[in-house]
Formats: sequence, structure tokens, C-alpha cells
Amino acid sequence: MGRQALSMLVENTPNVLSHVSGLFSRRGYNIDSITAGVTADPRFTRITIVSSGDEMILEQIEKQLAKLEDVIDIKKLEDGNSVCRELILIKISVKSTERQPVMSIAEIFKAKIVDVTNDSMMIELIGRQDKLDAFIELLDGYEILELARTGITGLSRGTSDVKILE
Amino acid sequence: MGRQALSMLVENTPNVLSHVSGLFSRRGYNIDSITAGVTADPRFTRITIVSSGDEMILEQIEKQLAKLEDVIDIKKLEDGNSVCRELILIKISVKSTERQPVMSIAEIFKAKIVDVTNDSMMIELIGRQDKLDAFIELLDGYEILELARTGITGLSRGTSDVKILE
Repeated sequence: MGRQALSMLVENTPNVLSHVSGLFSRRGYNIDSITAGVTADPRFTRITIVSSGDEMILEQIEKQLAKLEDVIDIKKLEDGNSVCRELILIKISVKSTERQPVMSIAEIFKAKIVDVTNDSMMIELIGRQDKLDAFIELLDGYEILELARTGITGLSRGTSDVKILE
Repeated sequence: MGRQALSMLVENTPNVLSHVSGLFSRRGYNIDSITAGVTADPRFTRITIVSSGDEMILEQIEKQLAKLEDVIDIKKLEDGNSVCRELILIKISVKSTERQPVMSIAEIFKAKIVDVTNDSMMIELIGRQDKLDAFIELLDGYEILELARTGITGLSRGTSDVKILE
């Protein structure tokens, strides 16, 4: 089983997301995460999809997505040539007397406490997937009340393969 | 025209994203951004959707989404009662002699330079939508080569409306 992150530049239309996700559901491909946001040019949206499967399936996914009419550009985000980041918000159950150890863990990971109540704390953390996973593991002793993660987004490094539009 | 962010807890199935986005495309509703990521419990995914439209449409969107079979819980993320964040990566064209002003802007916004080449810089910034927009506006004099944003994710503050599963 492998994993790949694909970065796609697509037309900003109401149907594009449904075309993309329809392809995955029709063929039974797995989506690990998806993020979509408009680019600096409002005509275009950048979608980042992380999917998993064996090598043949990953190759198929890339080929099928590239064929979609709305897809202008598609590229693989690979470890050496790209910067990938994810944002996560975690709300855990913490009594006021137990806040200090959580704050220490947060400090080590450069995470930010963004909300505190008498019985909970919400933490914001940014990083690569392995960092986020390590952080969640460290919080193992605490009850996670809610967790929201954006999914991975990324850009290739440097300027060599920037897609120039028109 | 209004805007709303909805946070949904859904079943983690290959079809859920296609059901959600299909609803938007069939009815012509607009998706401003979408993020989806698995929660601490791998059976569930949290999807955050930001959409825009007049009040009646926004209400319809919430009702229709709540009716979907895969949707376990849905709530509005509102300014006072929630923490909303977005992550953005921007690659701009900068000659090595012009790096300093960009670094100053980045410092003010607590943004992070995550990649530098002879003719480009990549910047990572986290925050609320208005902060990100202000940052992008300040970079107006620079050519934006590529931009990736995760879309908004968020959690409600405190513990009053946490959905307890099973």
C-alpha cells in the first residue's frame, strides 16, 4: 500500500468537486483527505487529494483525474520536491488543575492553545502528517472530544514547474 | 449574500464526499471551500464546508445536508462560539535582493518562510480568513506564482454541544 498527494489546478465551477469525488466513489478509490480553495486567480481552484492504494491504483487515479475536463494541471507532491502541510484543531477534556502537562506538550510541538474552558482545551497545530500523528499519540492519556483536520495541502518547491496560465 | 461554515461529522465511507458534493452541484449551490479529514475515531470523518448565498439558500443547504444518510451531526460554526482557521501556502516571485521586505511582512503576520530559491519564496500562514486576505493584499506588488489554501476548518468552543458517539 502506498500513498500519494496530488495537487490539481481546476476550473472554479460548481461541478468540479462532484466530478472529482464522483470518480473516486464510482471506482471505489479511497480518499484519505481533500482540500479545495480558490487560488489568487478566482477562475481557478486548487484541489489537493491524498489517496492510498497499491502502485497500479495510484497510477490509475492520477491518469483518470488528468482526463477530467475541469482539470487544467495535475502534479504529484513528493517528499523531496514539495512542501506539504496540514492544520489540525483538537479539543480535549482537561480539568483546570491538569492544564500544565498539556501546555508543555503544546510548547514542544510549537502548537497553540486557542481556547480554554473549565473542562476543556483546544489546540491548533500545523505541520507535516508525521508530526501531527506524533502529537495526537502524545495526547493519548486525554479524552479527545473533537478533532478537525484540514487535510494536506502543498506546493512544489522552486519555480521550475509552475504552470503559467494563458 | 451571506456566508456560513458548517461542520459535519460523517461516516468515513468512499461515497460520502460524492454525496455531499453531488447535492451542491445538483442544486447549483456554491462551495467556497471544503476540507475533509478523518477524526480521532477512524470510523468518522469531519467535513467543513463554507458556502455562500442568500439566507434562504444557506438554510436550505443546512437542511439538505442534515438529511443525507451519512451525516451524523451538523452544526454551524459561528463567530462567537467557534474557532475557525485556514492554512495557506503562497509562492511568490522574489529576486534575492528583494527578500527583506517580504520577510518583514511575514514577520508582522507571524508567517513562516518555508522555501527559498534564487527567484522565489514560499510562505506559510495560518489564521482566520480576514487575516489571510489582508496578507495576500499586502503581497500585491509581487507576482504570485502559486497559491494553495486548505479551506476553513473549525470547532465549536467549549464542551456544551460535543456530540458523544455511542
